[in-house]
Amino acid sequence: MTTAAESRPVEDLVVGVLGGTGPQGRGLAVRLAAVGQRVLLGSRDADRAREVAEEVAGRAATVSGGEVSVQGGSNLDVSGAADLVIVAVPYAGHAATLAELAAPLAGKVVVDCVVPMGFDELGAYVLDVEEGSVTQQAAALLPDSDVVGAFHHLSARLLEDLSQPTIDGDVMVVGDVRAATDTVQALAGRLPGMRGIYAGRLRNARQVEALTINLVSVNRRYKAHAGIRVTDV
Amino acid sequence: MTTAAESRPVEDLVVGVLGGTGPQGRGLAVRLAAVGQRVLLGSRDADRAREVAEEVAGRAATVSGGEVSVQGGSNLDVSGAADLVIVAVPYAGHAATLAELAAPLAGKVVVDCVVPMGFDELGAYVLDVEEGSVTQQAAALLPDSDVVGAFHHLSARLLEDLSQPTIDGDVMVVGDVRAATDTVQALAGRLPGMRGIYAGRLRNARQVEALTINLVSVNRRYKAHAGIRVTDV
Repeated sequence: MTTAAESRPVEDLVVGVLGGTGPQGRGLAVRLAAVGQRVLLGSRDADRAREVAEEVAGRAATVSGGEVSVQGGSNLDVSGAADLVIVAVPYAGHAATLAELAAPLAGKVVVDCVVPMGFDELGAYVLDVEEGSVTQQAAALLPDSDVVGAFHHLSARLLEDLSQPTIDGDVMVVGDVRAATDTVQALAGRLPGMRGIYAGRLRNARQVEALTINLVSVNRRYKAHAGIRVTDV
Repeated sequence: MTTAAESRPVEDLVVGVLGGTGPQGRGLAVRLAAVGQRVLLGSRDADRAREVAEEVAGRAATVSGGEVSVQGGSNLDVSGAADLVIVAVPYAGHAATLAELAAPLAGKVVVDCVVPMGFDELGAYVLDVEEGSVTQQAAALLPDSDVVGAFHHLSARLLEDLSQPTIDGDVMVVGDVRAATDTVQALAGRLPGMRGIYAGRLRNARQVEALTINLVSVNRRYKAHAGIRVTDV
């Protein structure tokens, strides 16, 4: 299978963001919109998605040199209409959300950025995922999509802060389909200052997701919004 | 408990390296010796350790501005004599090696850099460790030591290549005892170009260890010797 997203220039793709009203989804949406990517922002609540889409479009327009396009809708409608879909829902709703979207997401590149993170009195820790990782859970639920893991290590705070034109960090991209990881690397590379770096197969997604939890510890210790750079690449 | 290593300046510590005849141990030994750290290089085979120690001392001396001290011995002798001990044995021998060294390692900082990595026809993958991570396995076997995880992401090739005076990369340090992680961060900071970054508790060691496996994928794809930098710190 070659999906539509894999055979077209990445700047022409309509990017859907499921859970686009949350901090990570909204941050990715505003940064992608600011570089001219057409964005469809999805939520369980379509009205809420439309409200946030309008707000995101307004903010993206303040820094964009060109046209900005952000529209809101239900996760279902966005899944059907987008060429490539980023999953940014809370982990608690991840499996249930995707289970209902297998048909509209078939034949598409689906990029999962969800982190299986719990908190207790000692801080953040990794939740066990039966499939091994959240990305592998998505792949199991979406057998007809090309599932890729990426965008875990980007601080939502930095994504949302458009006063900083660039973000210092790389996007580790994991997946089993080369055309899909290539597409997602190209999409990541559109974010100013960032690169998409291929970082292995789906079976090695768990530690990429979970490293986000270590970055939470870094943030607490150093009062930072930490990300990752891959050296020597 | 405050160990000897935690209460003294890091440059005064005698650093033991178990499995010091392997690539990672040898690479750490030569870099530490080159900055003037006294190093005890351990191996199951004490004669082999002495041979490698002599060779490592010779190479370190070619780039060091000061005195170089590297001596070899059995893992048992090194565990008893060093102030702080780095565990760089192959994963296959990790548990058995440490189980015999709990007494000499008691009251010491023990730094584990072992990666639970397997290879098959698809490349590298993470081996399951019953305790959750190799570092937690060490902590379980060494109840009277302060166990820390660190030094996983340093390419042995770059460590050994003294023609490059600095290495571009950070050392993620995980552990539950602040004095011990502080000491290991300071030790990591002695390696030219590198920083020791606190990256969370022992229960979040697994993904730090396992990310090394993603770096193997990066190395294959990009013909690199990849490491990690933590941004915004």
